[in-house]
Amino acid sequence: MPFIVVNGPPVRDLARKRALVAGITEVVAREYGQPPENITVLIREDEAENVAVAGNLLADRKTE
Amino acid sequence: MPFIVVNGPPVRDLARKRALVAGITEVVAREYGQPPENITVLIREDEAENVAVAGNLLADRKTE
Amino acid sequence: MPFIVVNGPPVRDLARKRALVAGITEVVAREYGQPPENITVLIREDEAENVAVAGNLLADRKTE
Amino acid sequence: MPFIVVNGPPVRDLARKRALVAGITEVVAREYGQPPENITVLIREDEAENVAVAGNLLADRKTE
Amino acid sequence: MPFIVVNGPPVRDLARKRALVAGITEVVAREYGQPPENITVLIREDEAENVAVAGNLLADRKTE
Amino acid sequence: MPFIVVNGPPVRDLARKRALVAGITEVVAREYGQPPENITVLIREDEAENVAVAGNLLADRKTE
Repeated sequence: MPFIVVNGPPVRDLARKRALVAGITEVVAREYGQPPENITVLIREDEAENVAVAGNLLADRKTE
Repeated sequence: MPFIVVNGPPVRDLARKRALVAGITEVVAREYGQPPENITVLIREDEAENVAVAGNLLADRKTE
Repeated sequence: MPFIVVNGPPVRDLARKRALVAGITEVVAREYGQPPENITVLIREDEAENVAVAGNLLADRKTE
Repeated sequence: MPFIVVNGPPVRDLARKRALVAGITEVVAREYGQPPENITVLIREDEAENVAVAGNLLADRKTE
Repeated sequence: MPFIVVNGPPVRDLARKRALVAGITEVVAREYGQPPENITVLIREDEAENVAVAGNLLADRKTE
Repeated sequence: MPFIVVNGPPVRDLARKRALVAGITEVVAREYGQPPENITVLIREDEAENVAVAGNLLADRKTE
């Protein structure tokens, strides 16, 4: 602990994943006063056909 | 917010996903008194070899 | 399975919780083709000081 | 309920998944005093490029 | 990682929580081939008015 | 989306919560290329008797 889960669209670029987890870990370590070694970040990538806002799949928005 | 996660078996038919997220969003909007724009629904599809009930994988039930 | 988690603001009225879980269960049963007995719904109530949109706690919006 | 989610690295061997869910279900049934039929276990497999400890992706550790 | 979340009814007895997390950690360590130090278990306690099976709150079942 | 859940120990100080969600939102907005308005952060506070590392409750560590 702490354990952070980031749910978002797929991230194709590994460099972005690196920057994402490094940045979140830095913020969490500072605010919780915990060493980075205690902090785990999980990226969950959801396809546009599995996410809906306002009752509409993101996949349908993209094909409009 | 609200943010709803639906964990279930894979849904092969996109029309069912559309109906699922539309129906859930309608219920949640009504009961929370929130505009649909504030509501996100996430579908998580779990393969039968990753789900167990009563200690047995669903994948093993299917192959019985 | 299916297993649905609804993350949202606290719901003070038990009748609303009843309507929420009944409505969601009906939609999920229909779209997944599953008997209602297989469907679990979990309500998670998050206080306004534990939710942020656009980087601001909902608790701070309310006190503006 | 209870509903258990196991987040971990991919498990290539189906026999290990069987032993994992059987073992967890046994422990949970005993401590909650619930019949195994009420207990669901979900395995979530996260690739090494989607998990970070101490701000570094596990995928990067492996390629060092 | 691994990171396990146990969603269930409230557990009033601390000894049961101890046995629960010890038992799960042992199973997970064995099947994933990981040292126990890498394994985190989280207990989430949900009140009966926040859980529904078959569209009915557990709280309503209890008061029948 | 994106939707971030931070599981950690209780945070007593509201200023820390503000800094936590602001910092995470900034990182996520930058790496996903999304406007902050699309980003939700949820803080989940777990008591020490509900979290275990290496099979031992954090609550027991503290009382040693």
